[in-house]
Amino acid sequence: MVEERHPISVNEAVEKCMQHAITNTVESVSLHDANGRVLAEDLIATHDVPYFDRSPYDGFAIRAVDSSEASEQHPIAFRVVDEIGAGDRSEVKLAPFEAVRIMTGARLPEGADAVLMLERTEETEEGFKTSSQLKPGDNLSLTGEDLREGELILHKGETITPGVIAVLATFGYAQVSVYRKPIIGLIATGSELLDVDEPLDGQRIRNSNGPMIQAQANQINVECRVYQATEDHLSSLTHHVQQALKEVDCVVTTGGVSVGDFDLLPAVYEAIGAEVLFNKVAMRPGSVTTVAVKEGQFLFGLSGNPSACFTGFELFARPVLKKMMGDGKPYLPQSTATLDEPFKKYNPFTRFVRAIYQETVHGGRIAPAGFNKSNAISSIARSNAILVLPDGSEGWQTGDKVTVLHTDRMQGDATWTN
Amino acid sequence: MVEERHPISVNEAVEKCMQHAITNTVESVSLHDANGRVLAEDLIATHDVPYFDRSPYDGFAIRAVDSSEASEQHPIAFRVVDEIGAGDRSEVKLAPFEAVRIMTGARLPEGADAVLMLERTEETEEGFKTSSQLKPGDNLSLTGEDLREGELILHKGETITPGVIAVLATFGYAQVSVYRKPIIGLIATGSELLDVDEPLDGQRIRNSNGPMIQAQANQINVECRVYQATEDHLSSLTHHVQQALKEVDCVVTTGGVSVGDFDLLPAVYEAIGAEVLFNKVAMRPGSVTTVAVKEGQFLFGLSGNPSACFTGFELFARPVLKKMMGDGKPYLPQSTATLDEPFKKYNPFTRFVRAIYQETVHGGRIAPAGFNKSNAISSIARSNAILVLPDGSEGWQTGDKVTVLHTDRMQGDATWTN
Repeated sequence: MVEERHPISVNEAVEKCMQHAITNTVESVSLHDANGRVLAEDLIATHDVPYFDRSPYDGFAIRAVDSSEASEQHPIAFRVVDEIGAGDRSEVKLAPFEAVRIMTGARLPEGADAVLMLERTEETEEGFKTSSQLKPGDNLSLTGEDLREGELILHKGETITPGVIAVLATFGYAQVSVYRKPIIGLIATGSELLDVDEPLDGQRIRNSNGPMIQAQANQINVECRVYQATEDHLSSLTHHVQQALKEVDCVVTTGGVSVGDFDLLPAVYEAIGAEVLFNKVAMRPGSVTTVAVKEGQFLFGLSGNPSACFTGFELFARPVLKKMMGDGKPYLPQSTATLDEPFKKYNPFTRFVRAIYQETVHGGRIAPAGFNKSNAISSIARSNAILVLPDGSEGWQTGDKVTVLHTDRMQGDATWTN
Repeated sequence: MVEERHPISVNEAVEKCMQHAITNTVESVSLHDANGRVLAEDLIATHDVPYFDRSPYDGFAIRAVDSSEASEQHPIAFRVVDEIGAGDRSEVKLAPFEAVRIMTGARLPEGADAVLMLERTEETEEGFKTSSQLKPGDNLSLTGEDLREGELILHKGETITPGVIAVLATFGYAQVSVYRKPIIGLIATGSELLDVDEPLDGQRIRNSNGPMIQAQANQINVECRVYQATEDHLSSLTHHVQQALKEVDCVVTTGGVSVGDFDLLPAVYEAIGAEVLFNKVAMRPGSVTTVAVKEGQFLFGLSGNPSACFTGFELFARPVLKKMMGDGKPYLPQSTATLDEPFKKYNPFTRFVRAIYQETVHGGRIAPAGFNKSNAISSIARSNAILVLPDGSEGWQTGDKVTVLHTDRMQGDATWTN
């Protein structure tokens, strides 16, 4: 018996997912492990930066007033009374026409209010002469000029980058509050699947979706546990899903979701009492994508076709998992690009095409990554983006402006062209 | 005594680094651990994909010739003699007007040469009737239509993405040849540095460059070991550098490279017999960046200023490390964007400004991330890109086209707008 399914739009499907997604609890991690995690607390400056008036150069700390009469004709002589390296503090309080040799980053000595750069001085026996006139504050990094104590630097929900790590270190955050990372459980269903190390037998294929989803999860910093359930039996699959739900935050299944006799997922969802958010989406490939929720835990039923599986994970699982880990920017980065070759197929549903995106001086360009049937494995390997072609069009021409979802954007450049 | 340094251009500096960089040896890792690594072998299709003629739909496998007379008026009746799920193989050889019920992905039974979709049939006692005429090959995924055995899919030097993982799994690569990842040793020099968990004392600052570089290294999949050498003494520093060189591929030092009395690195390089590639670069900030090489091992002497340190790592260490790990695209991804606010400073040297890049429907836009002195910690936390302003200009206007180096491009979108 073929179950009837009513497609909803991709937007509606994404929205339904996000409405049900709940942000995880907060945990504390050491700064060393915080890169890539999401801040669960606003990042506040715990002190002024700089914390003290300091010299941004190697030079001489002086009282600016002492230089006020300096000129080419009448250089002023200073006596050097001390020397301070970064991290040191001078006990000296400057008297008139005294100077302290000061290194980059060192704290300004008492009495000084300007720094004279080394190259503006000429050495003498007692110190140096200069013809430069300074004003108070010249060549100083003043207390708090970068940040004031209490200033908000980043809101919670921002991802911690190397730059954020630097700020956290500056302010003494040896431990950082971040959202707990979700863990997914992965069940590749279908008796047609061989493991990667098994030989082919002419009727089964190797399980490629499982390792792919693991990698997609790792890509967004999500741990993935694999549950073995290759037999297409309701009781076995139900058991594995229930077991996984006890141990992980979300369950992802692939395969077994074609419309047909062998599709067990609806029965599994019913057996465990999960609410089905949708079981058909107006998209190609992947229209049979199913998402269900049980007490805040998601069950993503992704198509067995590799392209559909890939796209289904990125469109639905990714933002849910990102929201769970507190990320305020959960969706794939998006941009507009120019289509580099025509795409003639009529689109009854929105089409998501694995594609290669390239940046040029004339903006982004995009073309399908080759053979684009939903089961085409080669296009997945070559692509770095998903090309979105909305429904209802009779086809697309070279030069059309299209939407791009970026899946691999930190790929570097092969040449250095500055 | 102030050492004289002669600046070279950024391009020349990058080129010198890359000329000396040597690609690491090859190792074998399990598929499970291969995501993000770089292929050290060409990826070849080890068999046709599909490996056998298979059904892309749920339906009935038939001999097309039997349907050649079918019409609305004269539907043709078929007898269903077997049923095949994905992964199964039918022992049946189709006789005239026989059909086999076939599931998506299942191998076509002998004698069949087309698949009739379920919705084109009407059930009968013995099987079904259809008014559809099929040609041989209709609704089939043919052997090798995606990939032919022996076909080159990806060249070595490509980074392994989730899509590549799927292909590797398909072809049974349980182990993958990848380039060994480099390990860096990190030495934060300078007695002005406190650890992240130490209280401030009004003259020292916390070491923020160390944790930042660790995170920058992690970002490109490079392990970072920290060596403690906070005392500014030549013998101690030389000892730590030598020790690190025994254990890691590259040594990164930060701090202690300002032009001044306290700069020990030149002496360290001399003591260990390293060849200095350059010790001054025509860039702001970070002009005192020093890179030396000893027997294929790099020593990156990065400025102590956080922005300069960050940029120095991205410009020089990143491509070297990427080349070491075999990456054919070692440079930061680059694009052109429109400047969103004027930048008035005269540029004697090329300026690298921490900036915020945004994609809009009118293309990329970029603006400095705030306070942009080289020691400004706040701009590092907020930025996702480096704005490149070439030397020689009197300043830049809003609307000018500028070059952007992307440092954090997989940041997601806050909204879903398809």
